[in-house]
Amino acid sequence: MQLSPFLGELVGTLVVILLGDGVVANVILKQTKGEASGWIVITTGWAFAVTMGVFIAKAFGSIDGHLNPAVTIAFAVATSDYSKLASYIPAQMIGAFLGAVLVWLQYLPHWAATPDAGTKLAVFSTGPAIRQPASNVVSEMIGTLALIIGIAGISAKSLGTIAIGLGPYLVGVLVWSIGLSLGGTTGYAINPARDLGPRIAHALLPIPGKGSSDWNYAWVPIVGPIIGAVVGGLLIKWYAL
Amino acid sequence: MQLSPFLGELVGTLVVILLGDGVVANVILKQTKGEASGWIVITTGWAFAVTMGVFIAKAFGSIDGHLNPAVTIAFAVATSDYSKLASYIPAQMIGAFLGAVLVWLQYLPHWAATPDAGTKLAVFSTGPAIRQPASNVVSEMIGTLALIIGIAGISAKSLGTIAIGLGPYLVGVLVWSIGLSLGGTTGYAINPARDLGPRIAHALLPIPGKGSSDWNYAWVPIVGPIIGAVVGGLLIKWYAL
Amino acid sequence: MQLSPFLGELVGTLVVILLGDGVVANVILKQTKGEASGWIVITTGWAFAVTMGVFIAKAFGSIDGHLNPAVTIAFAVATSDYSKLASYIPAQMIGAFLGAVLVWLQYLPHWAATPDAGTKLAVFSTGPAIRQPASNVVSEMIGTLALIIGIAGISAKSLGTIAIGLGPYLVGVLVWSIGLSLGGTTGYAINPARDLGPRIAHALLPIPGKGSSDWNYAWVPIVGPIIGAVVGGLLIKWYAL
Amino acid sequence: MQLSPFLGELVGTLVVILLGDGVVANVILKQTKGEASGWIVITTGWAFAVTMGVFIAKAFGSIDGHLNPAVTIAFAVATSDYSKLASYIPAQMIGAFLGAVLVWLQYLPHWAATPDAGTKLAVFSTGPAIRQPASNVVSEMIGTLALIIGIAGISAKSLGTIAIGLGPYLVGVLVWSIGLSLGGTTGYAINPARDLGPRIAHALLPIPGKGSSDWNYAWVPIVGPIIGAVVGGLLIKWYAL
Repeated sequence: MQLSPFLGELVGTLVVILLGDGVVANVILKQTKGEASGWIVITTGWAFAVTMGVFIAKAFGSIDGHLNPAVTIAFAVATSDYSKLASYIPAQMIGAFLGAVLVWLQYLPHWAATPDAGTKLAVFSTGPAIRQPASNVVSEMIGTLALIIGIAGISAKSLGTIAIGLGPYLVGVLVWSIGLSLGGTTGYAINPARDLGPRIAHALLPIPGKGSSDWNYAWVPIVGPIIGAVVGGLLIKWYAL
Repeated sequence: MQLSPFLGELVGTLVVILLGDGVVANVILKQTKGEASGWIVITTGWAFAVTMGVFIAKAFGSIDGHLNPAVTIAFAVATSDYSKLASYIPAQMIGAFLGAVLVWLQYLPHWAATPDAGTKLAVFSTGPAIRQPASNVVSEMIGTLALIIGIAGISAKSLGTIAIGLGPYLVGVLVWSIGLSLGGTTGYAINPARDLGPRIAHALLPIPGKGSSDWNYAWVPIVGPIIGAVVGGLLIKWYAL
Repeated sequence: MQLSPFLGELVGTLVVILLGDGVVANVILKQTKGEASGWIVITTGWAFAVTMGVFIAKAFGSIDGHLNPAVTIAFAVATSDYSKLASYIPAQMIGAFLGAVLVWLQYLPHWAATPDAGTKLAVFSTGPAIRQPASNVVSEMIGTLALIIGIAGISAKSLGTIAIGLGPYLVGVLVWSIGLSLGGTTGYAINPARDLGPRIAHALLPIPGKGSSDWNYAWVPIVGPIIGAVVGGLLIKWYAL
Repeated sequence: MQLSPFLGELVGTLVVILLGDGVVANVILKQTKGEASGWIVITTGWAFAVTMGVFIAKAFGSIDGHLNPAVTIAFAVATSDYSKLASYIPAQMIGAFLGAVLVWLQYLPHWAATPDAGTKLAVFSTGPAIRQPASNVVSEMIGTLALIIGIAGISAKSLGTIAIGLGPYLVGVLVWSIGLSLGGTTGYAINPARDLGPRIAHALLPIPGKGSSDWNYAWVPIVGPIIGAVVGGLLIKWYAL
């Protein structure tokens, strides 16, 4: 079979969500081995979910390993080359949706064991700690901007880091940092596909005792990251980072 | 004396189980220094147990450092070369058994201090959070598939990572990720030797107040990982990862 | 636009404080996702705040990536070249101030949700666990000395580590170590800009229910780090590290 | 001034104890910022204490960066060259003593704030979770053997890891692993100087409300590590690791 950037972005994003939403399931669903193990587990899990997603995306044919429409948009803005959007973003969305389906399957016995409907949604998509949409958008924008500028910093040619193949590890460390430091407000979607794909999965899957998919909030983790991505892309362009 | 792949797989798997089952002993047995220190300790401990096992396996003569029949099977399927199975899998089983004996010895005063028989078994082998064998097999299959594809991603020639000797570290990060994210259901055996070798040790060792070795469940962490390994091996073959 | 060491130090320090004070906000403010997640979250967050700050500082034009007047002073003492102080230190102060403003914005809904005024100040600047100014100065001096000598160790030419671009990661590990081990007394400012810039931001920003900015203590995290920096710089010079 | 292996071993071991005993002080003394933050903090702190000690030891003139009489003995046995013992071991002992004095100074206000005398001793030197000297010796022997074989694995020439300067980081990961997995019984001295040097400091320093230095136990973390070191050294020799 044929490797391609489309396949790489799809499989890589699937892995990010399987491992990323997976760690949330482990921490917040009932009767799991990692129940209530806290923020250090969630943030470490998301960090290396991204590391592994990027390694695997590259193996499956994506030189970029974006796995995130915000990253794809930022580098399109930075390079004025928008040709990748039409294939990368659908691949990322499909991968995120499929990853969420796998999380549902992986934790199958635990949905019925968990009474609270809001907890079940929180495995799939993000929600704000305090619901104030304007502030929530700003939070997602700042988090995404940190992601974009951080990737630019890690990838700076003068450092030569990427050359030795540790780029995916360092991107995981960046996501660890953002989660620990900026994730306390909205749960750091910082990736429209990470939030929307699993939210659609939540709406479609037969989850016992599930509640609303909270579509009222769904625009925030799309709009915030896109604004942050555009700002970040412009900074990369202007400063030639 | 003579280094060999057999010796390397044996010693490396011994180290994985000594350090891996060791961290479980530390967290769940009574009166230890790490008592009740939680999932972050267990998953970090298992991650670097694997890292150190792979480093040591390579030093003792195993170029591969599989330390896991599922990994050996996956790469046999991927390469259509089944010649390593006959020597690697016995070496891994013996190593896993001996590693479990060392954990028993290392934590010798703590067996009598721990009243619950199920806790004692849980140091040696895995058990499900919610016992639903079909789901448990699926969980182990998904976890093992993530392991196999993750190893393929880390080892992809285009990245050059392995060339600098950090492969064992990155495999540890992969195991960290799988434990944090997918281990909440069945405790991520993802390795038939890791579960069966110590289960035999549990059955044979003179552990005060021990109970059943739960042989009814023993097939799950063998069958699930083998299915995951075959699927992973086929993916590596089809996509030439 | 033009990259420069001034811009690099400013943006890098901004990132350090955004991510560093950000993790404190996440852990100690009320109703955050990381509320009360403890010292491991705070120290891991600060570690990678510095890692990312250094990567980004280098991308924005600072070859050095000091992000800390104590580091700038130490290497000025070590090399007897004081020419960088006049531009680096203002850049670091401005960056630290702006980073603190961004933390205020990032966690905007959480200030009103947090009743205790001392907690709000603790997001911005350090305070002693037990207020004994002489001991507190010694603590900050020892922490900063460990930072300076650690940087010298990581950067030692014979090791070649920096050549592969992982210097910023290892500096983060160093800060992790100092936070875990020496931060228990004064909260490891070990950086005059890290403390003073955000303290000024605390004094100026419209934070609901804020109290004193504790100016009585403000000299300690300036004087202690400067003494440690001078001692560290002299050691580097005398031993030609 | 003159760099030398003696100075390197002395300063490096000082740093190991300052950061290693420092993290214990932070976690178990009263009114610290890291009070009761648990085993993950202690083991992460000790891991990177060793990483930083090795980096700094190398910068100060020790090519080896042993910082541990057990490591020096193991490699003497492995190479049949005992010439380093007479200078390295005294340097390690002096460094460990001085590091413990610095920890006492760093946490000066917290000794009076901590009522329990046993807690104060535990900052300096190790004690068993369950006092059974024979088992405790075995525990220290196994832990030290894991350390020696792990170092051999990390340093194996075929891997080329050390060449890129990340050896000290990987040794820290090894110590992390040993602490998490094998440290639950005796607190993983795995280093005679790490235990004896600070125990002497505890006996001599004016610590308010201190109790016994528990000299009855002091032989265990000397004898166990030495046995483990000799066994490890013989394995390295026999297998030419």
